[in-house]
Amino acid sequence: MEQRVSLITLGVADLARSRTFYETLGWRGQEVEETVFFQAGGLGLVLWSREKLALDSGLDDAHGTGFGGIVLAHNLRSPAEVDALLTTARQAGATITKPAATTTYGGYAGSFADPDGHLWEIAHNPGFPLAEDGTLTIPDFGTP
Amino acid sequence: MEQRVSLITLGVADLARSRTFYETLGWRGQEVEETVFFQAGGLGLVLWSREKLALDSGLDDAHGTGFGGIVLAHNLRSPAEVDALLTTARQAGATITKPAATTTYGGYAGSFADPDGHLWEIAHNPGFPLAEDGTLTIPDFGTP
Repeated sequence: MEQRVSLITLGVADLARSRTFYETLGWRGQEVEETVFFQAGGLGLVLWSREKLALDSGLDDAHGTGFGGIVLAHNLRSPAEVDALLTTARQAGATITKPAATTTYGGYAGSFADPDGHLWEIAHNPGFPLAEDGTLTIPDFGTP
Repeated sequence: MEQRVSLITLGVADLARSRTFYETLGWRGQEVEETVFFQAGGLGLVLWSREKLALDSGLDDAHGTGFGGIVLAHNLRSPAEVDALLTTARQAGATITKPAATTTYGGYAGSFADPDGHLWEIAHNPGFPLAEDGTLTIPDFGTP
């Protein structure tokens, strides 16, 4: 696993409120399908429904103990790399919260929790280009 | 506020266990003063006591509702920039959880919670170099 973080997703209760907050701080992003994507240096910072983020991480209940509402993502270049890293993570003591599967966006991803429950999504997303050094670029969604 | 994240700090219950976990995944970092620093692309990923992380963020109790055990940091180039950003954040609706003050490491930092309680530390840390583009470099602590 290379030492990099591709995305930080913040689970939010009210997307419009949160988007306005970060825009007031000077951030500019793109909203698509009830998700806001900000390019933040070499990674993406994402705002998404806290409930959906929990479910997407394989957790039943966003309100249960232990879900902090943040997921870190590590993106890879192929589904095979996703499978390999999830296997390594499990062997290292991670809990696989969501086995790898094809995603709605045409990618392939699974999730694990580290020893303290911090969640990582391991993903291959052909729509989010990765540079040689691992820098992730949020694509232009063509939204106004 | 530039669109970048300088540090991601994961609050952990057992530093040795967590360090071993990430090392088993292939990460290599430096441990100094019961803190592990990993260079992760243009930012740092840090492992630190969950209790200390809560207190350092101005929260009384790590076990209270709402502390997810992760803090994002945005580092700046001067104490004046820290003050200015915390003022902007408060005006944008943030809750200042820890007013800016001189830190034990010779810097200057304060913390806020965004509308969903996600914590940001806003810091000037002269020991952690920031490149022109905001890339943060974990210093060489000279540890074995």
